[in-house]
Amino acid sequence: MKVPAEILTLLRQEKSFIIATHVDPDADTLGSAIALSMALEAAGKETVLFNKSPFPALYNFLPGRDKLVSSAAELRPQNSVLLLLDFNEPERAGLEDITFPRSAVIDHHETMGAFGDIRWIMPSAPATGLMVYSLIKELGAAITKDIAVNLYTAIAVDTGTFRFSNTDSETLRACAELIDAGARPAEIADALYESWSDGRFRLLIMALDTLEISEGIAFTHVTKEMFTVTGTTPEDTDNFSTFPRKIKSLKLSAFFRETDNGWWRVSLRSREDINAAEIASAFNGGGHRKAAGYKIQADLKTAKKALLKALNSKS
Amino acid sequence: MKVPAEILTLLRQEKSFIIATHVDPDADTLGSAIALSMALEAAGKETVLFNKSPFPALYNFLPGRDKLVSSAAELRPQNSVLLLLDFNEPERAGLEDITFPRSAVIDHHETMGAFGDIRWIMPSAPATGLMVYSLIKELGAAITKDIAVNLYTAIAVDTGTFRFSNTDSETLRACAELIDAGARPAEIADALYESWSDGRFRLLIMALDTLEISEGIAFTHVTKEMFTVTGTTPEDTDNFSTFPRKIKSLKLSAFFRETDNGWWRVSLRSREDINAAEIASAFNGGGHRKAAGYKIQADLKTAKKALLKALNSKS
Repeated sequence: MKVPAEILTLLRQEKSFIIATHVDPDADTLGSAIALSMALEAAGKETVLFNKSPFPALYNFLPGRDKLVSSAAELRPQNSVLLLLDFNEPERAGLEDITFPRSAVIDHHETMGAFGDIRWIMPSAPATGLMVYSLIKELGAAITKDIAVNLYTAIAVDTGTFRFSNTDSETLRACAELIDAGARPAEIADALYESWSDGRFRLLIMALDTLEISEGIAFTHVTKEMFTVTGTTPEDTDNFSTFPRKIKSLKLSAFFRETDNGWWRVSLRSREDINAAEIASAFNGGGHRKAAGYKIQADLKTAKKALLKALNSKS
Repeated sequence: MKVPAEILTLLRQEKSFIIATHVDPDADTLGSAIALSMALEAAGKETVLFNKSPFPALYNFLPGRDKLVSSAAELRPQNSVLLLLDFNEPERAGLEDITFPRSAVIDHHETMGAFGDIRWIMPSAPATGLMVYSLIKELGAAITKDIAVNLYTAIAVDTGTFRFSNTDSETLRACAELIDAGARPAEIADALYESWSDGRFRLLIMALDTLEISEGIAFTHVTKEMFTVTGTTPEDTDNFSTFPRKIKSLKLSAFFRETDNGWWRVSLRSREDINAAEIASAFNGGGHRKAAGYKIQADLKTAKKALLKALNSKS
């Protein structure tokens, strides 16, 4: 992976950086930002790590997470370069009202926008974490154990621990180096996939009990009452939509989560030949080809019928 | 990984090989054996691939699977070297009654036996597939796409697709080369984890509905009636015991499968500090530290109580 010279020059010449992560942060934005902050500080730079959302408990094992600040009042934009990690518009970090003299974007998501004096956007990269890995190597900074754990986690989550089609040999070679630097694959996988509460597992069982299969779509759902009964929160349904995708004959897994005032949050997970993002866009939602989502205000039966109709009109 | 000179010499000097896989074959024995057979044939050797069991449908995607023979009558032991791949005693292949003039063992399982003129046993290796990868490289044979798919699958299954504690940087570097040679991580993961029948998924839901948690053990079970209702077979319960292990507070996940005449087949999956093999041995079973099993003839309630008692007497 080739790192653009202008991003290297920026990081070498400037002294102070605000490294922003997106709201509802995932491992890729968090791990990439924390790792880059550590590498820059080791090179004598000043950095501030920013995230507006509460820190997700799932990622409490990431070293350096305590350095994230959530108040924009702590930022001094006039002296710093703004870096967006794993997203490309300041709105996604809640920073749209602040003016920064210089800014750069490091992201692997497709973008239609134009924000950033320097834009390093690589949709072919499996994770922003892999871009930051290449960047840190090019800067000549050491990959410490803490950096390795953050980057390995970022890459692991965005590749489904090397199961998604974005997994390539460069990814595995980078992760091999991160293991040599101290990342422990089993410890990270345990923290990511085997650290559920009893309640979360009971909520999964309740969700699977609602399974209905119709015209190649697996429907599952979770109601507000189920959260109450199991003592869980919406965050606990993360990845629930992936379970029914084990069924080979399916086109789509659709998971409905009840929110307020008759609204449902819908997560779609599709197989190769179905474009989930296109279906979600029919409901003003969005996402990737294999994983997308949208919101709908309707009773559950009507909401399911609307999805079936949308799928049939696309395929 | 260092390949012993004597195994290289044997494979270079001899002309004809019978490559045996163990009964109830898994991906590591099958992929390792098929890959080695392909490499030896490319070097002008004759090979026969042997497995006594029916070929598991889950692995139908492995190229070269059609070359396996299941009848010992097709073997010509007097002219051939016997190679055991991923096991170390001829009994496990149903070959104990045949005498071979020469034999070798290539395996990553601990062994107390002494079978084999040449024994390459590496308990530290995550998979026999990784040993065969090193062997093929040392022999100077090309890693074709078909060899790559077989070896990648062997290594993927035995490391939980790089999630188990046996995953090291050498594993990832080898798999990176296998990707460069043509293995497709997402296609292999799809075939392994997302090719379930509807019935199998319904059986999983039924099994999870039986969840009981007591003293740190998650109990789940499947009855013969559930197989009938869902149109599934015992093979479909493969890995069911791993699901409850998502719960962080558990010591052990115990999955009970009903067989005949009041017998249950029990699969144990434990966390780091619990030795599942030791618990299974109390019931004359066996296995590894984190994954073991045994059989018990009792009503389900009594069988569960016996397991609780065994766990408490060990911890």
